Amino acid sequence: MGQTIAEKIFSTHLRDEPFPGTYVLDLDRVLCHEITTPVAIADLQWRGKDRVFDPDCIKAVIDHVTPAKDSKTATQGKMLREWARRHEIKDFFDVGRNGVCHALFPEKGFIRPGFTVIMGDSHTCTHGAFGAFAAGVGTTDLEVGILKGVCAFRKPNTIRVNLEGSLAQGVYAKDVILYVIGQLGVNGATDRVIEFRGSVVDGMSMEARMTLCNMAIEAGGTSGICLPDMTTVNYLWPFISSDYPDKEAALKDFSRWHSDADAEYEKVLDFDVCDLEPQVTFDYKPDCVKSVGEMAGTPVDQVYIGTCTNGRIEDLRVAAEILKGRKLADTVRGIVSPATPKIFQDALAEGIIQVFMDAGFCVTNPTCGACLGMSNGVLAEGEVCASTSNRNFNGRMGKGGMVHLMSPSTAAATAVKGVITDARRI
Amino acid sequence: MGQTIAEKIFSTHLRDEPFPGTYVLDLDRVLCHEITTPVAIADLQWRGKDRVFDPDCIKAVIDHVTPAKDSKTATQGKMLREWARRHEIKDFFDVGRNGVCHALFPEKGFIRPGFTVIMGDSHTCTHGAFGAFAAGVGTTDLEVGILKGVCAFRKPNTIRVNLEGSLAQGVYAKDVILYVIGQLGVNGATDRVIEFRGSVVDGMSMEARMTLCNMAIEAGGTSGICLPDMTTVNYLWPFISSDYPDKEAALKDFSRWHSDADAEYEKVLDFDVCDLEPQVTFDYKPDCVKSVGEMAGTPVDQVYIGTCTNGRIEDLRVAAEILKGRKLADTVRGIVSPATPKIFQDALAEGIIQVFMDAGFCVTNPTCGACLGMSNGVLAEGEVCASTSNRNFNGRMGKGGMVHLMSPSTAAATAVKGVITDARRI
Repeated sequence: MGQTIAEKIFSTHLRDEPFPGTYVLDLDRVLCHEITTPVAIADLQWRGKDRVFDPDCIKAVIDHVTPAKDSKTATQGKMLREWARRHEIKDFFDVGRNGVCHALFPEKGFIRPGFTVIMGDSHTCTHGAFGAFAAGVGTTDLEVGILKGVCAFRKPNTIRVNLEGSLAQGVYAKDVILYVIGQLGVNGATDRVIEFRGSVVDGMSMEARMTLCNMAIEAGGTSGICLPDMTTVNYLWPFISSDYPDKEAALKDFSRWHSDADAEYEKVLDFDVCDLEPQVTFDYKPDCVKSVGEMAGTPVDQVYIGTCTNGRIEDLRVAAEILKGRKLADTVRGIVSPATPKIFQDALAEGIIQVFMDAGFCVTNPTCGACLGMSNGVLAEGEVCASTSNRNFNGRMGKGGMVHLMSPSTAAATAVKGVITDARRI
Repeated sequence: MGQTIAEKIFSTHLRDEPFPGTYVLDLDRVLCHEITTPVAIADLQWRGKDRVFDPDCIKAVIDHVTPAKDSKTATQGKMLREWARRHEIKDFFDVGRNGVCHALFPEKGFIRPGFTVIMGDSHTCTHGAFGAFAAGVGTTDLEVGILKGVCAFRKPNTIRVNLEGSLAQGVYAKDVILYVIGQLGVNGATDRVIEFRGSVVDGMSMEARMTLCNMAIEAGGTSGICLPDMTTVNYLWPFISSDYPDKEAALKDFSRWHSDADAEYEKVLDFDVCDLEPQVTFDYKPDCVKSVGEMAGTPVDQVYIGTCTNGRIEDLRVAAEILKGRKLADTVRGIVSPATPKIFQDALAEGIIQVFMDAGFCVTNPTCGACLGMSNGVLAEGEVCASTSNRNFNGRMGKGGMVHLMSPSTAAATAVKGVITDARRI
């Protein structure tokens, strides 16, 4: 019988099956940031196991609060920094070279089709966009991963989401994934892999696929995953060009990771996106989704553009297109956090930073920042934020705050009008 | 008998002398930021006195922690914002339009020769660079200022500091003021005005004069002050050109505020700066100053360029000149915080932001940030920072951290080498 991509990755990485349905996999990447990793480091030290399985497979970054906002976050950064130096983890990205992990690590070419990837971060599923099995884990799994290079997972039952049709002008990957989460529900894919398929995915850039996979966890999914294709090859080519005679050869190699035609899925969902409208969340769960028309007119205090979901150059381009020659509404403050230094510099070169500044936005250094209410745009009680991030949980961006998730396009239009606005009608 | 500039300002603004030696002055400017003003606002509300004496004389900004890093700072910002809206204070600078108060307010043309200026901030003395009497005050004085537009001061006994000679290449206003503080001691000018005079001051830009006056408080001074001249006229001309037929007329008007030749000073200090070397602090007081040669080789973990002392465009230019084509040392992280959006945009246009990024610096949005250990670069225990800021108090930039104050030039050279370095020998 055929296998899904996740099953193929499991088969090729299987180290042990201690009991039926639990698979210990070899890890290709253990990704680390300064919030969850220091807890693991401290525990490993306490156990007398301050070692790493392979410094080349470990990549680390300070991204959640950067530069440090207080003694606690300064200490977290210091612990990660000293650990990276101690174990000669050369891919450690310190203040100034750092960016949002799920944007930075792909940009550096660290993620490849068929890889197993873990991180102590819920949005690790982002990396599935490359045809990798990438999952967020807790501290114990992270510790084992760091020390032994393995992680245990249950059988990767897969929900296949077929996305067919074509997206209308002004509708983006963020709208698609918000809609899918709205259909699946926040527990609809719990302990499952979501495999994104269909012509819509085929037509998407890697950036858009990352947006798609990034939010798999918001439906409960362990990992989102896309099949690697020529778009994947093109993105990775600067990093793999010496491994293959040409792109066709890379594509052929990558196609090892395609789900078989007769692979078995737990569920197959078909969506035609032709009539999809821009989506916006209401309430405190990511599956509380409405079309922008239903939410239009809702006043906001802050607009936040950035994060591992939508802080990439394509996202900034879309927002800048709308902001160009326009100003923020007087009642709104705008914050944009380009996700990595490269994205910041590309945006600089393209004049996008200038557009944001001219519109009245605050342009922060690359950071996770406001998304999780830890820095750079925390809401006060009663404030409302239009955000391109991934979670609208109660208190996520600050106690007593309300977050409406949306695409960069809708966020930019909302910034101009001061109320939730359909960018196609601005 | 003649008068000093401070005495002239006192004479022209005198509302009352309730008892000998205490002068209640009319205020031209009450400046506000989000850390100290909300305390005053809350108290005024509690007293049933939620009023302002003149919304046009009050200028407000969110600058210390911006964007907000947590619920507390978000609430502080919200209180200031709502207060500004409630009282129609049109010059309120919110996230995105905001910058370090003592850089932003002069840039907007709000400070003029002969003005009386207060703010709930110790570095309010900066504005004395324009020939204003500008002093940091506590909450009670701030409340009275907001409500009544007056503030009580003691007799402005003045220490005249004559700076003669010419600065060697690579020696800046920051080195001068560090040296002067070293000579005066941290209590050497307590309850006094420091009047900066001499050919060195005459030759300085407004930016350099602001650096000079900014640190008057570090010798205990109530205000630093410079006499307004054609440099002052040129800086302010965009804001005053309709008030005068030409610059000469403005200069003549400004000269009302010159200290009389027979003015009486409490003390006159003469410094010849010809042989002055770049200065660097050691220990935890700003008067612990050595020449850079004596401090050279001291390792640092972080380099911070910015603040109300040295975050202006001239400062960034000097640092960029050294950083161009060079990289941060591997052991150092660099943070630069341009002091205002205009400075950021000017630095963008001049390619300076690119130079900082290419060198590996983290470029933050305009903010007071790391200077006072409240955000964007707080030190961990045991870390050392080379900083262009104004205070090296124990714990100032983070508990257990050490701060070495220096000029942007010395800071940039130190960033490249990873140890305190004389920029003239790099």
